[in-house]
Amino acid sequence: MIDHTSTVSDIATAVKAGRLRAAETVEIALARIAELDGRLNGFTDLMAERARATAARLDAAIKEGHEPGPLAGVPFAVKDLYDIAGRVTTAGSRINRDREPSGADQPLIQRLEAAGAVLVGALNMSEYAYDFIGENIHYGHARNPHDPSRGAGGSSSGSGVAVASGMVPLSLGSDTNGSIRVPSSFCGLFGLKPTFGRLPRNRSFPFVSSLDHLGPMARSARDLALAYDAIQGPDADDPVCAQRAPEPALPDLEHGVDGLRIAVAGDYFAKGGEPLAHEAVEAFAAALGTSRTITLPEARRARAAAYVMTAVEGANLHRERLRHRADEINPETRDRLLAGALLPAEWYVQASRFRRWYRARVRELFRDVDVILAPATPCVAPRLGEEIMVIDGVELPVKSTIGMFAQPISFLGLPVVATPYAKASPMPIGVQVIAAPWREDHALRVARHLEHLGVAASRVASV
Amino acid sequence: MIDHTSTVSDIATAVKAGRLRAAETVEIALARIAELDGRLNGFTDLMAERARATAARLDAAIKEGHEPGPLAGVPFAVKDLYDIAGRVTTAGSRINRDREPSGADQPLIQRLEAAGAVLVGALNMSEYAYDFIGENIHYGHARNPHDPSRGAGGSSSGSGVAVASGMVPLSLGSDTNGSIRVPSSFCGLFGLKPTFGRLPRNRSFPFVSSLDHLGPMARSARDLALAYDAIQGPDADDPVCAQRAPEPALPDLEHGVDGLRIAVAGDYFAKGGEPLAHEAVEAFAAALGTSRTITLPEARRARAAAYVMTAVEGANLHRERLRHRADEINPETRDRLLAGALLPAEWYVQASRFRRWYRARVRELFRDVDVILAPATPCVAPRLGEEIMVIDGVELPVKSTIGMFAQPISFLGLPVVATPYAKASPMPIGVQVIAAPWREDHALRVARHLEHLGVAASRVASV
Repeated sequence: MIDHTSTVSDIATAVKAGRLRAAETVEIALARIAELDGRLNGFTDLMAERARATAARLDAAIKEGHEPGPLAGVPFAVKDLYDIAGRVTTAGSRINRDREPSGADQPLIQRLEAAGAVLVGALNMSEYAYDFIGENIHYGHARNPHDPSRGAGGSSSGSGVAVASGMVPLSLGSDTNGSIRVPSSFCGLFGLKPTFGRLPRNRSFPFVSSLDHLGPMARSARDLALAYDAIQGPDADDPVCAQRAPEPALPDLEHGVDGLRIAVAGDYFAKGGEPLAHEAVEAFAAALGTSRTITLPEARRARAAAYVMTAVEGANLHRERLRHRADEINPETRDRLLAGALLPAEWYVQASRFRRWYRARVRELFRDVDVILAPATPCVAPRLGEEIMVIDGVELPVKSTIGMFAQPISFLGLPVVATPYAKASPMPIGVQVIAAPWREDHALRVARHLEHLGVAASRVASV
Repeated sequence: MIDHTSTVSDIATAVKAGRLRAAETVEIALARIAELDGRLNGFTDLMAERARATAARLDAAIKEGHEPGPLAGVPFAVKDLYDIAGRVTTAGSRINRDREPSGADQPLIQRLEAAGAVLVGALNMSEYAYDFIGENIHYGHARNPHDPSRGAGGSSSGSGVAVASGMVPLSLGSDTNGSIRVPSSFCGLFGLKPTFGRLPRNRSFPFVSSLDHLGPMARSARDLALAYDAIQGPDADDPVCAQRAPEPALPDLEHGVDGLRIAVAGDYFAKGGEPLAHEAVEAFAAALGTSRTITLPEARRARAAAYVMTAVEGANLHRERLRHRADEINPETRDRLLAGALLPAEWYVQASRFRRWYRARVRELFRDVDVILAPATPCVAPRLGEEIMVIDGVELPVKSTIGMFAQPISFLGLPVVATPYAKASPMPIGVQVIAAPWREDHALRVARHLEHLGVAASRVASV
C-alpha cells in the first residue's frame, strides 16, 4: 500500500511491478501538498500540469513494455535555485523574478527524470541561500513539519519540509556551509552533501562557487543511494565538475561496516552543542562499536575561513544587486553581503591558502580512518524569531551558531551523509557521517547500517 | 675562440669537443664580472669557489670520458630568489638576510648543472620582485650595460645585466607581470617566460603565486631553447607545476615558420608605446610576411586585474613583514604592498573570475592562430630616476607604464619569447612572440627564424 509515508524504494518497486501507476503517485503527492503546504510553506511553485504530463508519458511507456528506470514514478521537488525549463529560478529572492525563464532543466533534474522520477515543483529556500533557519520574507518562512513554530533549517528549507511532511519522498537541495545537512538535521532526514565537484552545478543559481554543492535529501539511506546513483557523472557545461564516471553506491550499500575504520571527531566537535547533539554521536559510535576519536586540526579556523570566503564570494556574486536593488533583499542577508564587500582581499587570500593547507592535513587523517562521526547541528530546530540560545551556560547567537559543526567539513569538500538520530524526540537531530573525498559510498554504507541497527531513523511528521 | 661574447652554444660545443676546459670558461666569466660589476651591480653574490669546484669536477669527468651534457661548461647565474644550497636567498631585500641558508639548490639550477652548466653567482633584482626599472636601495640599482645611466629593467635586473654585458651567456629570472620580458627588452636579450605551471617553482622565493613564472634569458633563441630543454619537467615538491613530460623545443627549432599562423596583436597593443616599440613589431611582421591582426579582447581590463591580484597576493605574502618590519622595505615597494592589503576582497574575486573568462576567450583565438606578436615594452630603458615619460603627447608615470604590454599576457599564463629588435640603437627594445599554452616551441621557432632573417639580434654591450 503506497501512501504519503512511502519511500522512494517502495514507490519505484510498486510502479515497476505494475502495482501502481505514476499518475497515482503524483496525485498522492499533490494531495498531500494541497493539504499541508498552506501551513508549512515548503513550495514556491507547484507544477501539477508538468508532473501529470510526465507521469502520463511514463505510464504509457511502461504499458508499452519499456523499462521505467530505478526511480519509476517517484515524485520529487527541487530547491528553487535549480533551473526548471520555462520557469524563472528565484533563488528565494524577489529580484530574480525579473530574470528570463530557464531554457532547460538543471542536469540533476534531467537525470532523475531519465531514471523515472517525476518533478512536481520548486521548493522554498532562504533568500540567495544565505541563512540556516529557513526564513524567507518574500515567500514566507518554511515551517518545520515536526513543530510549525520552528524553522525547517536553511537554506534548503523547503527540501526539508517537503520530505519530512510526506509531500514527496525525495528532494534536491544545495549545501554551501551546511544547507543540506542543517535542514536534514532539523527535519530528521537523510541528506547527502557529496564531494565538492562530484555533481554538475550548471543551471543552478550559485552562492559561493568554491563551496557550493548540490545533493539529495530523503527518508532513508537507501533512498539517498538510489537518487545519488541516478544523478552522478560529469557534464560538459560545468568546468568545475570532476571528470569522473559514476561510482554507484548501491551495490555495496548493504555490506555493513566490516572493514571500515570509523572514528568520532574529538576536540572542537565533542563540545559546544546541546547534550542531545553529542548524545546522538555517542549513540552512533556505541552502536558501531567504535571508541576511537580523531582530531580534525584547526576546525575553528576552518569555520572562520569559510565565513570569509562565503561573505566575499557572495558579495562579489551579488555586487550589482547590492548596488542597485539592495532595498529588495532581506535586510539581514543584505547586511551580511555588504559586510563581505568590505572585507580586505588579503583575508580572502589567507583563507584560500589556509584551505589548501587544511585539506592536505585532513586528507592525511583519512589514511588511518574511513569514516568520521560529528554532530550535524549543535541544537534542534530553534523557534522562528529566536535570536539567542544558551549552551553550557553561554548565550550564543542562534543563526550563526547553527553551522558550527557543518562549516569546517564543507570547507574541505568532504562527502557527508546527515543521518537522523532515531531517539531524538519530539524534535529531530542529525549526525554527520563523513567520508574521504570521493567515498560517498562509505558514508552511505555506515548510514544504512545505523538504520539497520535501529539507532538512525527518519519518520514522516504527523502535522 | 671563446671569449665573453660567446654564446651558450659556442661554449658547450667547444667544451664538448675538448677545445676548452670548463675551468677556462669560468675564469672568462669571473674576469668579466670583476671588470664590470662594480659599475653595473648585476650580482648580489659571486660564488667563485663553488664555480671553480664545479668546473674542476666537470673537467675531470670529461677527461674520464663521461658525456658532459648539452650545456657543458656554460657559466650561468640566477636571480637572487632562487635557492642556492648553503646561501641565504635575499629576494633583493634586507629583511630576508635573517632567514636560514637554503638546504638545496632550486631544481632549475640542479637541472642546468646536471646538463653541464656551472653556476657562478646570484643576481641583483628589484626588492621582492616588485618593480620594472631594476632599482634596489639595498644592493644598488642595476645599471643597463648599453647605458649605465639607465635601468636594466626589473625585476630580473641582474639577469639582464649579466647576459647583456657578457659576464655570463645565460641567466635565470622570474616573471610575474613582465620581470623577464622587461629586462630582456631593455637589455636587448632573448628571454623566455614559459607557460604558467611549466617549470617547478619550489625553492624559489615567491611573489604572486597565481602569476609567478621562472625562465631563462640568453643572447640567442638557440641558447634559450638549449637551456629550456634542460630545465623542463615536473617536480614532486611543486604542486602547481604541471605533470607534463619535457617537450623539447630544439628538434624543430630550425624548421622556420612554415605552417605557423602568425598575427599581430591589434587595438590595445598597436598603440600607446614609443614609435620604436611599434616599429619593431611591424618589422617582425613584415619579415614574417604577415599582415594579419588579431584582437585580444579586454586587454586593458586584464592589466587592471593583474594589478589587483599582484597587490593583494603580494600583501598577503608579506603580511608579517609589513606588520613588523615595514621600515626595512623600500618605501615605494612597501606602499604598493600596503595598498594591496587595503583592497576589498570582492575586487580580488572579480579579478579571478574575469581571468577565467578571459583565458577561455583567448584560448579560442588560438584555434585560428599559432603565434601573436606584440610589443614587449612601450619604451626603451628609462634613465634611473626618471619619473615621467611622454607618449603621444600624454605624460605617463614611467614605472607603472612599462608593464602595459607584458601584464595582459602573463595574466593569461601564455608562453612568450621576448625577442630583441636588431635595428634598435643605441638602446635595445624587444617584441613579445606569444604562443598558445604549452607551445613554447612555436614561439622559439619564430624567434629563431627572425634571427635568421636578421631582424632580431642580441649583442654584447660595449661597456
